[in-house]
Amino acid sequence: MLYLEDFFVGQSFRSEQYPVSEQEICAFAERYDPQPFHLDADAAELSHFAGLAASGWHTAAITMRLMVTSPLRPAGGVIGAGVEELRWLKPVRPGDVLEARMDVVQTRPMASEPGRGLVKLTVSTLNQRGETVQQFTCTLVVRRLRRDLLHSHIEHRTLGQIPDLHGNAFLPAPA
Amino acid sequence: MLYLEDFFVGQSFRSEQYPVSEQEICAFAERYDPQPFHLDADAAELSHFAGLAASGWHTAAITMRLMVTSPLRPAGGVIGAGVEELRWLKPVRPGDVLEARMDVVQTRPMASEPGRGLVKLTVSTLNQRGETVQQFTCTLVVRRLRRDLLHSHIEHRTLGQIPDLHGNAFLPAPA
Repeated sequence: MLYLEDFFVGQSFRSEQYPVSEQEICAFAERYDPQPFHLDADAAELSHFAGLAASGWHTAAITMRLMVTSPLRPAGGVIGAGVEELRWLKPVRPGDVLEARMDVVQTRPMASEPGRGLVKLTVSTLNQRGETVQQFTCTLVVRRLRRDLLHSHIEHRTLGQIPDLHGNAFLPAPA
Repeated sequence: MLYLEDFFVGQSFRSEQYPVSEQEICAFAERYDPQPFHLDADAAELSHFAGLAASGWHTAAITMRLMVTSPLRPAGGVIGAGVEELRWLKPVRPGDVLEARMDVVQTRPMASEPGRGLVKLTVSTLNQRGETVQQFTCTLVVRRLRRDLLHSHIEHRTLGQIPDLHGNAFLPAPA
């Protein structure tokens, strides 16, 4: 479990790999992006993509899975505050094997919520040839370790009585 | 089928409605966003979301379906060049009924490709209470009608011989 204080600019995380099948491309598209170039190999030949390609939102969903199952494990979960500059740079084809890379570009406390902070990441999705097929920047809401409160708390209580120090609103007012 | 010339700033499109079931929220999350607050109602109670909520990427995927099946039908398909400022403003809950609204905020020809143009939209996803649960701006690549070429072409050929005027690179050089 990672807290705001565990993240630093320049830090990088890599995900596991995810093979993308034609069946999955078409199943996702049937439900969420029913356009010929995501559904049918023959129709796709004549389209903008010159061949069957995964919906961009499918690539985004796969990337979320790769983030959530990666070593980037913020306490409280991967909770996005927003996404910037989402770009689909190359088509994702049946048989491609995707991998995500998360690079920390900023960390800062939240002014409005003392128990939380924001971690800004550039998230790149690569195929088996190392080509970036998708990229975006996102901001995660991450819990703080609150070392400051830990210290002031120790002054008032014995170590054995300290409750869970991870998370928000966990500290009763000192007696 | 809509061409660049059919879009104008201030134009608005509304989608059909999409009911979101608990079963679909959990099925999407199991595959693409396996975190307790998207998978299990009890675990979700204690989370950031205080109850089961759809993955943000699930809301985005549903919104794509609502766009593709709406009256906004660009010739060549709904092809996104990029997405800006994707925000999840409110949780999507089991039983919510979503609807998308697409507002045109800019249209312009593409300098690099004379047969295509760009249409910038603000896409808002609303629930049954009219609350915006998600919003983003996206830019679509849209074919041009090429009325300019139509006119110069008429000078050289009789009207009956004019080939398909929709799309790119359709005009042979005048004889």
